[in-house]
Amino acid sequence: MDDRYERGLRKLGEIDGKQGEQIVAALQDIAPDFARYIVEFPFGDIYNRAGLDLRTREIATVAALTAMGTAPTQLRVHIHGALNVGCSRTEITEVIMQMAVFAGFPAALNGLAAAKTVFAERA
Amino acid sequence: MDDRYERGLRKLGEIDGKQGEQIVAALQDIAPDFARYIVEFPFGDIYNRAGLDLRTREIATVAALTAMGTAPTQLRVHIHGALNVGCSRTEITEVIMQMAVFAGFPAALNGLAAAKTVFAERA
Amino acid sequence: MDDRYERGLRKLGEIDGKQGEQIVAALQDIAPDFARYIVEFPFGDIYNRAGLDLRTREIATVAALTAMGTAPTQLRVHIHGALNVGCSRTEITEVIMQMAVFAGFPAALNGLAAAKTVFAERA
Amino acid sequence: MDDRYERGLRKLGEIDGKQGEQIVAALQDIAPDFARYIVEFPFGDIYNRAGLDLRTREIATVAALTAMGTAPTQLRVHIHGALNVGCSRTEITEVIMQMAVFAGFPAALNGLAAAKTVFAERA
Amino acid sequence: MDDRYERGLRKLGEIDGKQGEQIVAALQDIAPDFARYIVEFPFGDIYNRAGLDLRTREIATVAALTAMGTAPTQLRVHIHGALNVGCSRTEITEVIMQMAVFAGFPAALNGLAAAKTVFAERA
Amino acid sequence: MDDRYERGLRKLGEIDGKQGEQIVAALQDIAPDFARYIVEFPFGDIYNRAGLDLRTREIATVAALTAMGTAPTQLRVHIHGALNVGCSRTEITEVIMQMAVFAGFPAALNGLAAAKTVFAERA
Repeated sequence: MDDRYERGLRKLGEIDGKQGEQIVAALQDIAPDFARYIVEFPFGDIYNRAGLDLRTREIATVAALTAMGTAPTQLRVHIHGALNVGCSRTEITEVIMQMAVFAGFPAALNGLAAAKTVFAERA
Repeated sequence: MDDRYERGLRKLGEIDGKQGEQIVAALQDIAPDFARYIVEFPFGDIYNRAGLDLRTREIATVAALTAMGTAPTQLRVHIHGALNVGCSRTEITEVIMQMAVFAGFPAALNGLAAAKTVFAERA
Repeated sequence: MDDRYERGLRKLGEIDGKQGEQIVAALQDIAPDFARYIVEFPFGDIYNRAGLDLRTREIATVAALTAMGTAPTQLRVHIHGALNVGCSRTEITEVIMQMAVFAGFPAALNGLAAAKTVFAERA
Repeated sequence: MDDRYERGLRKLGEIDGKQGEQIVAALQDIAPDFARYIVEFPFGDIYNRAGLDLRTREIATVAALTAMGTAPTQLRVHIHGALNVGCSRTEITEVIMQMAVFAGFPAALNGLAAAKTVFAERA
Repeated sequence: MDDRYERGLRKLGEIDGKQGEQIVAALQDIAPDFARYIVEFPFGDIYNRAGLDLRTREIATVAALTAMGTAPTQLRVHIHGALNVGCSRTEITEVIMQMAVFAGFPAALNGLAAAKTVFAERA
Repeated sequence: MDDRYERGLRKLGEIDGKQGEQIVAALQDIAPDFARYIVEFPFGDIYNRAGLDLRTREIATVAALTAMGTAPTQLRVHIHGALNVGCSRTEITEVIMQMAVFAGFPAALNGLAAAKTVFAERA
């Protein structure tokens, strides 16, 4: 456990709050090393970099996960994350709608349904 | 040809400059209506919306196209577009690198190669 | 609201019946403009075009959504749609089976499961 | 070599003409059994089935390959195939344009570029 | 029904046990020919080939389905299959973790969740 | 530069030889940190793990990249890598052919074409 892990854990908490802890906890019995990698590389290395603020990073992630359409659970986590770091609901729905252009209307529709679920969870 | 087309054409020019004109021109013999749709919906409707600034929209598009990995030509066009609307090279390489987390290292590597090509074209 | 919206709404009703209304209604609180875009572009512009009859358009859509595998909800809606515009159950299962060749057996298996659900809903 | 192979070879010739022979020939040194499987399963089993005419089968294939965006070579082969079995250029461009709705504008743009190439090859 | 079907059925039973029978049975009312194709081509032709042992074949399948992310049901079936033919839980979680490199962390996370479900079902 | 980097570099050399060095070198001007991440996470963390031998890891990677179809350059690199760590040509073509079952015939055909190119490069 080095510095990457510590700073990754702080960044994960900053973005995902308790959901981040739950993701890490759920991996402990099946793949504890993978729980560590998730803290270290995505959050310790990438999300900790300068050059792009956290809000823009979460916008990029919501865009990518909406467009890919293969990770609905992670999309919801990162819609929460985007809100946690200061993105507005409008910004999130705008970026999801925009994905209709690049990945098709079903991708955007499924992204909007995810946003609707997340917004309701926080109401 | 209504207002959507006119405002779409202005937005397309703002983002893509001459490349936008070329994309539209290349469609004239095979699918002229589709050339019109591209101006109207993505640029006249979506990119003209309030709620998300153009720089953030282009970041989201570069993220999505890098993650999808199926549209290398359009990725290069939108890296140019991101630079045209004021994104820095650093912001673009940061968002592409981040895609390694969500879509894998090959997607990010191919995105960085696209950025390298685009940066060289503008040198 | 112009002519595109009106003719899109008629086409959406022709293909999807009440399901189309529900999709549009479900978007009203989160992204009302997107509800309008769905009526206008896919149904007002594309599905209203001459050059391809509605049955063939729905076959193409069922093929694409089965192959992509990322939009199971929309696949079921369009299997209903294909039946609504006159495709037979045999034609639908044939096009889904054919996708095993192009997108693999799991894609076709999941498409057949969707068709089975839809056929049962209409029994 | 049984009946499936013979009827597959006839079907492959009917759809792809000399291109079909070339695909099979190109596999002889690296994977001769796979050359046989391509003749037997996609063409001997699937494309030979009743329940969907060849023109509709090729429309479905062009739709799927355009939407997937991962097989540009096979997309061009099947645009040729669609024309060989009697689809019009208009039908082909219509189905490709429609994919903008389900898989995004880049997928449709790349499909139209493939169609443009194929139409030029036949001029 | 020829030799391919018989040897495919034996191979399917060897890999998937009762689950294989259920998949085939579930297709009988909607697409009985497709049930036969699944036995014949994937299991009768491909999985029966020499040149790669069954354990390695199941590793390759778990890798592919994890990376694609579009077939969660089939991924669980093949994690069962991998265990049935002698892969260890460690080998399966290793190959799924490795997919983070090539298809992104969400793909690996969803794969690990599938493995966790399967391991619990066998407990 | 810690231990992860050193052991990653050794593993990268073991799998990819000079090609690995070239991939790292090509990133130096555009994204030097990403060059470091590639050495550290995929090769220093994942490929260095016990629990799965290198040959099986490369089989899994070739399977995944063939099935995804979005990273043809990386597929060729890892076909070289598979051969470098001791996989036979037969094993590689077997795993690629098997992907026809899970990702469709075009994915397998494109994978076989990549293998043919790589085998010729080593002749």
